[in-house]
Amino acid sequence: MTASQAGPLQLFELAAADPQVRFSPNCWRIRLALIHKGLECERLDWRFTEKQRIAASGQGKVPVLVDGGRMLHESWDIARHLERSHADRPSLFGPAPGEALARFVNQWAAESLHPALARVIVPAIADMVADCDRAYFVQTREATLGASMDELRRLRGESLAALNKVLQPLRSTLGTQDFLCGAQPLYADMVAYSAFQWARICDPQPVLAADDGLRPWLRRMDERFPEAARAPGVRYPF
Amino acid sequence: MTASQAGPLQLFELAAADPQVRFSPNCWRIRLALIHKGLECERLDWRFTEKQRIAASGQGKVPVLVDGGRMLHESWDIARHLERSHADRPSLFGPAPGEALARFVNQWAAESLHPALARVIVPAIADMVADCDRAYFVQTREATLGASMDELRRLRGESLAALNKVLQPLRSTLGTQDFLCGAQPLYADMVAYSAFQWARICDPQPVLAADDGLRPWLRRMDERFPEAARAPGVRYPF
Repeated sequence: MTASQAGPLQLFELAAADPQVRFSPNCWRIRLALIHKGLECERLDWRFTEKQRIAASGQGKVPVLVDGGRMLHESWDIARHLERSHADRPSLFGPAPGEALARFVNQWAAESLHPALARVIVPAIADMVADCDRAYFVQTREATLGASMDELRRLRGESLAALNKVLQPLRSTLGTQDFLCGAQPLYADMVAYSAFQWARICDPQPVLAADDGLRPWLRRMDERFPEAARAPGVRYPF
Repeated sequence: MTASQAGPLQLFELAAADPQVRFSPNCWRIRLALIHKGLECERLDWRFTEKQRIAASGQGKVPVLVDGGRMLHESWDIARHLERSHADRPSLFGPAPGEALARFVNQWAAESLHPALARVIVPAIADMVADCDRAYFVQTREATLGASMDELRRLRGESLAALNKVLQPLRSTLGTQDFLCGAQPLYADMVAYSAFQWARICDPQPVLAADDGLRPWLRRMDERFPEAARAPGVRYPF
């Protein structure tokens, strides 16, 4: 028996002022992974400042997956755990070198894509987080990004240009194949798509031009994951 | 019979003033792919300005692979051709989603890594290209990079900092696994490694710090590909 069979899965997801609105890209990729594997889970809304509720995970960020009483954190480790503990379900990575290369996409999202996207959408996020989270959010993000919310708003044009540059490898790849993982979306697609899900839930202004080459892929992902396309808080279709 | 069986392979490789010194990252990745597949090829030295010698390819850049009388260009297309026409040899991509994800690494190298690295090493390349190529090289690179060789030299510190940022996803990925493709190097590793081969052949000043987290991976690649580690013009070990 695997740990997962010991009880229902629970997923702590970051929530906005409206608790139905879940916007974290790292939580979204795990939700998509659960859908891909056909696993039910209880979704718990969580706020940045509710560190105590996930203290048993040994850290203070979500996603946190509760599986058989264990609290797992770090989206990459959760994805690997799901892959291994539900090896009979559809794979998130495919055979080698699928997982190893998905790791690179994961790190590219964490260290290139998310930072570039954050500079664009963080002011909008500050407007939608719960009141109890706002001061924490603004303070930590201004420190990380080295700019005030007002400065970030003023710099939006430059930040969009920088984001656009970061996105170029994704765009050109998806210009020649249906999904990052080829004919079907796997975890690397979920990671990249979740960044745009984050953007369209948080920021009323689209981050991509109407004719951006990424949109056909995003629409294919929406078709594959209607729960994401119709999620509470989604402000526009791709 | 595949086209490849019709005659020996020939590879046009960009050469420096010293024709034994082959420095192009796009040529190196194809050479490594040929070694990986255990295919012999005749290596032809070629200069930027010798467009006529490869005119039959319909364009003016190397690598160009001559296979059974056909001239193939574009490193990604050459790699796919080798994979398909020599399917009995060790695979460059592994099973799906290996090729699709390698495509993303290929595009990341072309559109993020190479442009960032070029800003650092192009002045050194200008010093080592053949006399017949120098004016062409300086003019085209200054236009592409929007800066003179002198400006690029002055900006080296900033360019190294920008390169360092671009490299972060590669570095963190290789901090947790031996190769980009997992336990063994495949084409995505060859693509990324060839960028550093380019740098260490062209520029006497290393682009990575002595304790950079990428070096253990680069040394593993050197072990796997001793022909690259000991190639004419290599200025330092990783």
